[in-house]
Amino acid sequence: MASNPKKKKDFISTQDWSREELDRLLDITKDLKTYPEKYRNTLTGKSLCMFFYNPSMRTRNSTEVAAYQLGIHPTFNSIKDSWIGYQSESVKDTAKVLARYYDAIGIRIFPVSVNWIYKEGNRILREFADYSDVPIINFEDDQFHPLQALTDIYSIKEKKGDPRGKKIVISWAYHPKPLPVSVPNSILLITSRYGMDITLAHPKGYDLDSDIMNIARNNAKEFGGSLTISNDINEAYSNADVVYVKSWGALKYYGNAKDEKQLRMPYRDNWRIREENLDFTDSNSILMHCLPIRRNIVADDAVIDGKHSIVYDQAENRLYTAKALLYDLLREKE
Amino acid sequence: MASNPKKKKDFISTQDWSREELDRLLDITKDLKTYPEKYRNTLTGKSLCMFFYNPSMRTRNSTEVAAYQLGIHPTFNSIKDSWIGYQSESVKDTAKVLARYYDAIGIRIFPVSVNWIYKEGNRILREFADYSDVPIINFEDDQFHPLQALTDIYSIKEKKGDPRGKKIVISWAYHPKPLPVSVPNSILLITSRYGMDITLAHPKGYDLDSDIMNIARNNAKEFGGSLTISNDINEAYSNADVVYVKSWGALKYYGNAKDEKQLRMPYRDNWRIREENLDFTDSNSILMHCLPIRRNIVADDAVIDGKHSIVYDQAENRLYTAKALLYDLLREKE
Amino acid sequence: MASNPKKKKDFISTQDWSREELDRLLDITKDLKTYPEKYRNTLTGKSLCMFFYNPSMRTRNSTEVAAYQLGIHPTFNSIKDSWIGYQSESVKDTAKVLARYYDAIGIRIFPVSVNWIYKEGNRILREFADYSDVPIINFEDDQFHPLQALTDIYSIKEKKGDPRGKKIVISWAYHPKPLPVSVPNSILLITSRYGMDITLAHPKGYDLDSDIMNIARNNAKEFGGSLTISNDINEAYSNADVVYVKSWGALKYYGNAKDEKQLRMPYRDNWRIREENLDFTDSNSILMHCLPIRRNIVADDAVIDGKHSIVYDQAENRLYTAKALLYDLLREKE
Repeated sequence: MASNPKKKKDFISTQDWSREELDRLLDITKDLKTYPEKYRNTLTGKSLCMFFYNPSMRTRNSTEVAAYQLGIHPTFNSIKDSWIGYQSESVKDTAKVLARYYDAIGIRIFPVSVNWIYKEGNRILREFADYSDVPIINFEDDQFHPLQALTDIYSIKEKKGDPRGKKIVISWAYHPKPLPVSVPNSILLITSRYGMDITLAHPKGYDLDSDIMNIARNNAKEFGGSLTISNDINEAYSNADVVYVKSWGALKYYGNAKDEKQLRMPYRDNWRIREENLDFTDSNSILMHCLPIRRNIVADDAVIDGKHSIVYDQAENRLYTAKALLYDLLREKE
Repeated sequence: MASNPKKKKDFISTQDWSREELDRLLDITKDLKTYPEKYRNTLTGKSLCMFFYNPSMRTRNSTEVAAYQLGIHPTFNSIKDSWIGYQSESVKDTAKVLARYYDAIGIRIFPVSVNWIYKEGNRILREFADYSDVPIINFEDDQFHPLQALTDIYSIKEKKGDPRGKKIVISWAYHPKPLPVSVPNSILLITSRYGMDITLAHPKGYDLDSDIMNIARNNAKEFGGSLTISNDINEAYSNADVVYVKSWGALKYYGNAKDEKQLRMPYRDNWRIREENLDFTDSNSILMHCLPIRRNIVADDAVIDGKHSIVYDQAENRLYTAKALLYDLLREKE
Repeated sequence: MASNPKKKKDFISTQDWSREELDRLLDITKDLKTYPEKYRNTLTGKSLCMFFYNPSMRTRNSTEVAAYQLGIHPTFNSIKDSWIGYQSESVKDTAKVLARYYDAIGIRIFPVSVNWIYKEGNRILREFADYSDVPIINFEDDQFHPLQALTDIYSIKEKKGDPRGKKIVISWAYHPKPLPVSVPNSILLITSRYGMDITLAHPKGYDLDSDIMNIARNNAKEFGGSLTISNDINEAYSNADVVYVKSWGALKYYGNAKDEKQLRMPYRDNWRIREENLDFTDSNSILMHCLPIRRNIVADDAVIDGKHSIVYDQAENRLYTAKALLYDLLREKE
């Protein structure tokens, strides 16, 4: 448990962290990717509770390996095998008890686990944070996926250098089902913190949360970037340095898959990402996606496996950013 | 696997252990809570099989962290992902094989997994113990929850000093569903071993297992305590040093939730624990519950969060007693 | 992840490995069983992904403990809590990403997870191997169970010395459901690599895959053994040194449990293995089964618990062969 609860810090949205703190996380990421042995077993004796209301592949496995390499013991809890806050036990009691056993608690909670009441998952995470004496880490809720965002900005820096003034298209894509908005929200918030020129490209009706948009606009102002919305995919991709593909569901039909489908279907062909779309981008542009991706539905094989794609390097970086976060949260602070 | 199977000892009920052995467990608990570093990695190389027919939060997480801190590798097996004795494979074969891989085996089996045939879960655990060459640890069966009992008596000693002659009310409370009797059985057996003056408070029809009651009475006689039954909650709580709240289902309707509900419903208001009930107790009394608890149904927030409550300290002690038990069972005996 | 992906080697079928390589695995097995401390923590810092589409008891637990004893961190992923290749994400993407986090990936996939399309599970494993930069370990697919086969030949050597020229009966047995052919295929392939005189005993209609039979015949030719088929259980068991009992479903009704049952039912009594059957074998013969086994349906208690039976020693050897394989795959090669 926390040696000094007062100092505990949560990681629920990158927006809760200062630019300096985020920079520190990116610096640690780079250092531990370069010198893994330096960090090995530096946190031996500590334990991480990993709690998943919903399935996970990348987040669970990258964080578990990251923890192990630092010497931390990770405990995977599935909602199928455990009880945890808000369903069979109060959030307060769960948070208070788990914080007596663990040094940090990571939680994933998707819209489906909170009946598609938008931001209810995030609210639950913040309630955990209120009661827990140890850091709460967001393993993706219904509003944010900060570990992904951290990885994304790290990957952009790694591949393209200083993000400032670089053009990123955050591009909607067709998907057979309405997906959560946590990833687009998070990539929007982080890239605007790093002064990128952002084009948010999506068909009409796929606007993101206006509160998030306002924060992103303020971020852009503060950090010297810009934010443009485009409903024209080709125009949007024009001269982009970074293309970030991600599907999401329309907020106005949030939790209403049937009506949402009516809105989405007409965009199936035009918003399936193809090689031709990338022809509009800078010749050295990078193509990103958080994975998993439905191949040849969301984007063509030629895109995912093409010369622009960095999707596997991006996925690999999940390991290093998870490790950097754990290291930063749990090392002894002087 | 066991270096000397002859010496193996199981932990299925505290009643199977002598008072001296239980005292030793409590001494180790205190020592390792005070000096955690002394015990770190003392059992490196050993492995613990954790098998759960049913969900768990406290038992699983406290034991897993306890094992890790001692250097033991814990393996969580859910019935959803494994085969284990009596359902798809004989108990004999499962026990004999797992004992070849592990140094100890913990098992949770609830009434629902044995079709509410009372004591069938406990019988299965004892069958595991018969065939296993390594210790079997009861992670709560349908009759006992000895790790909880050990924690409870430790917590009482920690907060109130020598339990002898102190008054404990084991208090039934209303709950929307009929719950197992493993916790009340276990707290009754352990507190009677430590010479407490026990008042078992419950409405008519909620008598505990008469065999357990007889053992408790004999314990009381042997260790200088007493056992009284009361159907009057206020009278029961009068001058209590310890209030242990726990709901359980009526044995006469065991496995028959519908009829049990008829019996239970009239007690909903009077046996919901409120601040006023605690006014009858000693002003320094402690309020215990094993958690999880349905807030404002079983007991009010004012009770659970009030000045008498030690529920989080009690839950934290699960970590130390689990660790003490593992240490005692698995360290090299000379 | 792999320090040198070029050198990576998969373990999908023992037939993919040379006799010299298999001999090396058996030598390591013997050495680490004899001198466990020599190997302890020799692979610290490495991680093993364990992915199960289907339940497991022996494979999961033996491999997890084996990994831990070598210092490797094992991560258990159930299909219930994760996404993995071919169901919600492409095999390519899953393999490529997991290989960035782990040093090896073990996968179990049964016929039921590939709609009983024979060899589809094996094909998926080989697709994983094509895309993964780290070794893929077969935790039992729909065609092979090579970790079991390795254990079996090790156990035969341990109990009976050089397998060459020894008679083994691979004996079909009745079971209430049609079981996969992975174990009989695998034991057939490995024992024919070691020059045993094999009698494959089964009722009419229970022929194994003709491709596997051809490979086994070629193995027998190359290594000086023989392969005979018998439909007469008593004749088959005559003078056997090793009896390997295992039920499997008829390939001609593969995935068609109803029709298969018609074929199987008449053999219920005669192909239930009894003490009398063993009277036909050599007086020092050993009785093997991979477990789990339905007692008194597949074989009598008197067989499983009798003097010929080595089933628990065989199951224990799973620990040592898993450890030998991990050690061989992951140690630094000069």
